[in-house]
Amino acid sequence: MLQRIDHVGIAVASLDAAIERYRETFALEVVAVEVNAEQGVREAMLELRDGAAGASSYIQLLQPLADDTPVGRFLARRGEGLHHVGYAVADVASELESLAAQGIELIDQRPRHGSMGAAIAFLHPRGLHGVLTELVQPGRA
Amino acid sequence: MLQRIDHVGIAVASLDAAIERYRETFALEVVAVEVNAEQGVREAMLELRDGAAGASSYIQLLQPLADDTPVGRFLARRGEGLHHVGYAVADVASELESLAAQGIELIDQRPRHGSMGAAIAFLHPRGLHGVLTELVQPGRA
Repeated sequence: MLQRIDHVGIAVASLDAAIERYRETFALEVVAVEVNAEQGVREAMLELRDGAAGASSYIQLLQPLADDTPVGRFLARRGEGLHHVGYAVADVASELESLAAQGIELIDQRPRHGSMGAAIAFLHPRGLHGVLTELVQPGRA
Repeated sequence: MLQRIDHVGIAVASLDAAIERYRETFALEVVAVEVNAEQGVREAMLELRDGAAGASSYIQLLQPLADDTPVGRFLARRGEGLHHVGYAVADVASELESLAAQGIELIDQRPRHGSMGAAIAFLHPRGLHGVLTELVQPGRA
């Protein structure tokens, strides 16, 4: 069901500073900068291109839009760092159904909109050894 | 320089419980279980196979061998959860040289042994917005 690690989400205090640091250090291209008001973040996607055959993976930098948001509370509690991991799947709705049937605790009962046109859903860290886990059905071609 | 996300490292209290949970939930295969005494962990690699063309990525589960180890201290301070991210590179030694020349703070000045025969090196989270970052030159074919 999980095809690959699609991205890691990193909570940062300043999106602009983090973009510069990651872009310059690792010579990455910023392929999207978006505001996701529902999730309370401004975010950037930096692409890792795995040669001709492989699918890309991404570093997602997340700055909270306000202190009283999930990423804002994460920053206040733990500081900057790894916030979640996203795994690519072929069909996020059918994966959610199968996970719910297994009794896995979901945050999202149905898919919602993620970065770059993806359909996404979060699973609760309680059931997965403390890891906030995202399923990603990529929207890009 | 970074080809893809090779793995996420997850700190867990019980390796056996975490293996069972991740294996059953996501139908993953455990491809290695190793003790890395130098890093003070017992660890398992679960493989995500990205079709015929793409390279695999991995979920690495890490149980500390003792409380007084880096992962043991992480667990005591923050509980179970995402511990680090590993990026695949073609040549870890030359990447380290280039990063050092940029003034990026390294933990490892030269490559050492990682999971499944890889050559690895860690970069300090201070320079990377709180993210403990590993470079991985895979040892597997």
